[in-house]
Amino acid sequence: MRKENIKVIIWGLGAMGKGMAEMLLNKKGVEIVGVVGRTHRLGKSMYDYLDVERGDRPDIIIGEYDKVITEKAADVVIIATDSFTRDNFEKIKYCLERKINVISTAEEMAYPQAQEPELAKELDRIAKENGVTVLGTGINPGLIMDLLVIALTGACIEVESIRAERVNNLSPFGPAVMEGQGVGLTVEEFNNRVKEGTLAGHVGFPESIRMIADAIGWKLSDEVELIREPIVSKVYRKAPHAEVQPGNVAGCNMKGFGRVDGEVKIEMLHPQQVEPQLEGGSTGDYITIKGTPNINMSIKPEVPGGIGTIAMCVNMIPHVINASPGLKTMIDLPVPRAIMGDMRELID
Amino acid sequence: MRKENIKVIIWGLGAMGKGMAEMLLNKKGVEIVGVVGRTHRLGKSMYDYLDVERGDRPDIIIGEYDKVITEKAADVVIIATDSFTRDNFEKIKYCLERKINVISTAEEMAYPQAQEPELAKELDRIAKENGVTVLGTGINPGLIMDLLVIALTGACIEVESIRAERVNNLSPFGPAVMEGQGVGLTVEEFNNRVKEGTLAGHVGFPESIRMIADAIGWKLSDEVELIREPIVSKVYRKAPHAEVQPGNVAGCNMKGFGRVDGEVKIEMLHPQQVEPQLEGGSTGDYITIKGTPNINMSIKPEVPGGIGTIAMCVNMIPHVINASPGLKTMIDLPVPRAIMGDMRELID
Repeated sequence: MRKENIKVIIWGLGAMGKGMAEMLLNKKGVEIVGVVGRTHRLGKSMYDYLDVERGDRPDIIIGEYDKVITEKAADVVIIATDSFTRDNFEKIKYCLERKINVISTAEEMAYPQAQEPELAKELDRIAKENGVTVLGTGINPGLIMDLLVIALTGACIEVESIRAERVNNLSPFGPAVMEGQGVGLTVEEFNNRVKEGTLAGHVGFPESIRMIADAIGWKLSDEVELIREPIVSKVYRKAPHAEVQPGNVAGCNMKGFGRVDGEVKIEMLHPQQVEPQLEGGSTGDYITIKGTPNINMSIKPEVPGGIGTIAMCVNMIPHVINASPGLKTMIDLPVPRAIMGDMRELID
Repeated sequence: MRKENIKVIIWGLGAMGKGMAEMLLNKKGVEIVGVVGRTHRLGKSMYDYLDVERGDRPDIIIGEYDKVITEKAADVVIIATDSFTRDNFEKIKYCLERKINVISTAEEMAYPQAQEPELAKELDRIAKENGVTVLGTGINPGLIMDLLVIALTGACIEVESIRAERVNNLSPFGPAVMEGQGVGLTVEEFNNRVKEGTLAGHVGFPESIRMIADAIGWKLSDEVELIREPIVSKVYRKAPHAEVQPGNVAGCNMKGFGRVDGEVKIEMLHPQQVEPQLEGGSTGDYITIKGTPNINMSIKPEVPGGIGTIAMCVNMIPHVINASPGLKTMIDLPVPRAIMGDMRELID
């Protein structure tokens, strides 16, 4: 077993970066050697932002990226700052060129081949040139609506169609998510933002759908179709960071369709809203595969998004260190798994 | 893409071997180049035993292993003849020494490290020496009560305990399975066979439990505990190959327990019986993870065992060809997936 701890740098101390730092501090054989932050956090102790006592650990001062990320300063940088490959690209490049592996939480990075094939090629080239690996992952995309679907098709002789549905409660999330999903808007405001292209909804369906199609060998005949519909509330709903009047929008019902020879083969449904139980909705993850055999899976309640993304990124660290150089996706690597022992034991 | 088809030899034309042959004949980029059989099947056409027309395909004559399996005669041999590593060992060795990759349906081969560590080491050595790979897989062990559990822990920050339950209907199976599970016996006969050690029950719990423990980093403190209990029927039950009188045994309730520091951390329940619905039982696969977060998964009805094993073995062919040499298990390789395109596209 390797002697020195696995060294991790966290770039971004939002809810995800914070959660990963806390998780890492409770794991054996791994240590945080640097944190990259911005503005008012710069120069302060990482521990000021965590729900963990520093104890007798050396302090970690939040720094600027070019000070913290130097050649081989860590085994892995986890970048938790963006949703889109284009916004994330320069940060990933910077780390790879310093010969450090990268795990990105950017949803599009879960399968950048889907919407940014040129950037994906470029990242693969840079990673190989520097002998390191880059992976995008998270709970979704990354596991629930793609990798888990793919793993279940492993039990199938034939697959005719796939439907994945994730029904969740947005209430625990902060103001940025409320804004991105249009929670509290009037239906007119919601529809205007969809028209303007400023309502994000769920980011990741083109990635999940392409990941599934490529994994099982379906050639998509059309671009992935995306639909964003308002979830109109009949009742008053209240969450820590949002309020919804009856008749207004409780969230965004995101739908995605992947077609083969013009026919829908992959259907994704992801209604995200605050307090769905107020109208009798129950949350959960559902996968329906029609084929030989049919498979009907459900997880109730849904695997929570925040905890799940934190866990997936940290749990993939050993796989990323062990991987051959280049851009990898979840279908290239061994299955994710919790790490309850010493992380160093998992390094080849 | 590779030009020539992927070449497969099937060793054993029982229900599993037959199903895999039929599946392979319907896939692109792969061909069956040989079949090893015994006794009355020797010298006959494989097509006589399949539900597939030969058409204009070259005939495949069922032969003895030493005639069919010659050096590099195929990319992969699928061996579907045994349940136990010890019985399977010489066959696997024979193929590896002819520089051919092996996929085995033997339940113990899904994780031979659990009960046959010496043979596992030996297979690893022979495979590496010959530059090829050996994998044991199937629906269970192989996916439902181990790999799927492990993949779901990937979304967990911490895992406290794991429970996997598979409730199925044995009615579609043949006389060998009825015999192995004690279907139709009196309770006394059943208990006597358990005492004598001649009632197999489900084979694979030590393998599944060790696979999970090793994957997530738990050190088992005790040997895996196995319990075989009779499922006593209150009603008359009838299946194609068995008949159960009220008060007699409808099947075997197999339980397995994996302990860490003496405490049960992994619990497996697998009641296998004919016609469970006659007493209100419903079939399904259930995984409960206690941890951060809790995860409650169900698949209803259960993924069928026969089809699932056939699919898993065939679907893992490309991963086995791509793998580095040695003994591999499902936790070493990328996730299984259905193959709906040309199998050659999946070869690196």
